[in-house]
Amino acid sequence: MKTPEQIFHSRDKRPHSDPEVFGRDEVRLANRNSGALLETLGLDITPTGTHYLLTHFDTPLLDAASHSLRFHGVFDAPYEMSLEEIRALPAVTMHVTMECAGNGRAGVSPRSCSMPWMYEAVGTSEWTGTPLRPLIERAGLRRDAVEVAFTGADFGFDRGQPHAFGRSLTLAQLAELDVLLVYDMNGAPLLPQHGAPLRIIVPGWYGMASVKWLTDIESLAAPYQGFQQVQTYRFRKDDNDPGRPITTIRVKSLMVPPGVPDWLTRVRFVSPGPTEIVGRAWSGGGVPVTRVEFAVDDVWQEAELLGAPGPFAWAKWRVNWQAEPGNHVLRCRAWDANGAAQPIGPQWDMAGFANNAVQAVDVFVGEMP
Amino acid sequence: MKTPEQIFHSRDKRPHSDPEVFGRDEVRLANRNSGALLETLGLDITPTGTHYLLTHFDTPLLDAASHSLRFHGVFDAPYEMSLEEIRALPAVTMHVTMECAGNGRAGVSPRSCSMPWMYEAVGTSEWTGTPLRPLIERAGLRRDAVEVAFTGADFGFDRGQPHAFGRSLTLAQLAELDVLLVYDMNGAPLLPQHGAPLRIIVPGWYGMASVKWLTDIESLAAPYQGFQQVQTYRFRKDDNDPGRPITTIRVKSLMVPPGVPDWLTRVRFVSPGPTEIVGRAWSGGGVPVTRVEFAVDDVWQEAELLGAPGPFAWAKWRVNWQAEPGNHVLRCRAWDANGAAQPIGPQWDMAGFANNAVQAVDVFVGEMP
Repeated sequence: MKTPEQIFHSRDKRPHSDPEVFGRDEVRLANRNSGALLETLGLDITPTGTHYLLTHFDTPLLDAASHSLRFHGVFDAPYEMSLEEIRALPAVTMHVTMECAGNGRAGVSPRSCSMPWMYEAVGTSEWTGTPLRPLIERAGLRRDAVEVAFTGADFGFDRGQPHAFGRSLTLAQLAELDVLLVYDMNGAPLLPQHGAPLRIIVPGWYGMASVKWLTDIESLAAPYQGFQQVQTYRFRKDDNDPGRPITTIRVKSLMVPPGVPDWLTRVRFVSPGPTEIVGRAWSGGGVPVTRVEFAVDDVWQEAELLGAPGPFAWAKWRVNWQAEPGNHVLRCRAWDANGAAQPIGPQWDMAGFANNAVQAVDVFVGEMP
Repeated sequence: MKTPEQIFHSRDKRPHSDPEVFGRDEVRLANRNSGALLETLGLDITPTGTHYLLTHFDTPLLDAASHSLRFHGVFDAPYEMSLEEIRALPAVTMHVTMECAGNGRAGVSPRSCSMPWMYEAVGTSEWTGTPLRPLIERAGLRRDAVEVAFTGADFGFDRGQPHAFGRSLTLAQLAELDVLLVYDMNGAPLLPQHGAPLRIIVPGWYGMASVKWLTDIESLAAPYQGFQQVQTYRFRKDDNDPGRPITTIRVKSLMVPPGVPDWLTRVRFVSPGPTEIVGRAWSGGGVPVTRVEFAVDDVWQEAELLGAPGPFAWAKWRVNWQAEPGNHVLRCRAWDANGAAQPIGPQWDMAGFANNAVQAVDVFVGEMP
């Protein structure tokens, strides 16, 4: 009798060395998870139902009426709170741009076998909930507490290890971050696939921190050892690298692809003449974007920054392009207030995490046939 | 200077002969389009935002307040109607199961280079709108009319041909089908990605007929020659086959994969013992499902049919399974009132259309480690 570890390791999980070749496991994940529609990047808010989705296991279908959140572990006064009670607390609404730590994985070579995101794992929503910090204070962190762990109702296996999806934050991170306990998205109750009825949002961090289907908040006297904290979501150069945890979002920008697409290749057809290009740029940790550049065939020009819907949300930018007949590659690149800039090509990471290399859009400028 | 046809044919579009190897164009489409979450198949209504999406071009962002629908062509009394006027007409709400004609394409070999759906391009929504037929009658079909064409605002290229997405129905089809002019989905205005502010729903047909972002209804004195009617969405055996148009949905069934998944492979882990399996079965043209069978390792048993939320919507089914330790393959199979049954393996079609072969779910039954 094989163990789950043997069963779930039976498939070929070696990295793909050919960037143009993908496997069935990757395509199954791509069919199931869903990416943003880049043509909607002009909108401050990603349309409901098109926010990117990366679900490790199955989407749990939880009952909002009976849902409660347990505060336990090394707290002085552990307690449980119903969703109804949480909804009655002071409410805050924030525009937050969230990006999957795996966004851009398909641009890194050799490519780790996982969800093969290109550019589309990003979105901005209006999240409504109550600040987490007062609820932690109410439970009373014991003096031996070092971290707080968040556990969701989604359960499954990864590399043979069964676990509910969980993540932790240190006390210093909790003190610094405006973590929100969220029940509404874009003015309506969370949809099942986005963590209904309760999740957290960790503004400025990659999406793995914003645990969905939240059931438990546990105060810990030792660092959390959950699979999704220590086994994955770490930057690693090779198999021997213990890795560094992934935290805040790296600076990045995307443009709305101009013109109209070819169905299969998504190459864009643009008519010659003046063309407005708009896009978005964002960074992590609440650090503002300070500059965006746009390039046609590697000739760069400054774009105009138009402001963001909130300190943790993407800024809009625009530029005028005089489209001339022929094939072109359009690119955009952002800088943030810390001086960080997007690299032109991907930085190496074993699992293809946090690839913030510039977007390249292939266009053909010509007269409509 | 190359033509759009040359540009957009420059990529390798040959069919893939290795069913385990996929190309970047296919993965880009899979990241962008989105499939159902099979774990929600127990619900009558697919949760908002998880209904499958297959968008040929870009999602147009249209203004509902100024949107209107033009009836033109060989009508006696062409007219235009605002969305507001359409919303004031008698309203009908229908549960309709929609499936993409390309669902199952990744199971057909050699595989046409397009959206590589496995099982997930299906969903059921509660659609609200007004019946189309009285609006056609009001425009008065001229005696020379033979078809009515529906055009959306989505525009792009396919095989070098620029076109707005459009489809037609013959007068006989229009007389027979309960085509609905739809503005609400699950009790709320259509989301942008589902055709806002106006689309049609053609119950019982594959999804290509249910034109989104509807702007024009044109009465034609000769058969419609739109790209999406005559160049694609046809069953073809080889390059020399002129093909047969794709119309009604073929009988099909899916189960909710039991237990919990492995993240990467989606192989299921199930604890030994009694396990309830639930799923859905549907057919096209309003033909009811009459029988569903469930198999463990090719040993078939009858499932219990539990009824459907409407005549054009999927029926629920259930069966008890005594899960025994080891590796198993679970399958399900449906029959409809016309005597049509799902084939065990895929039927050949050049473009991989309408593959209704049985679903196979790999499970590992064992004690939780």
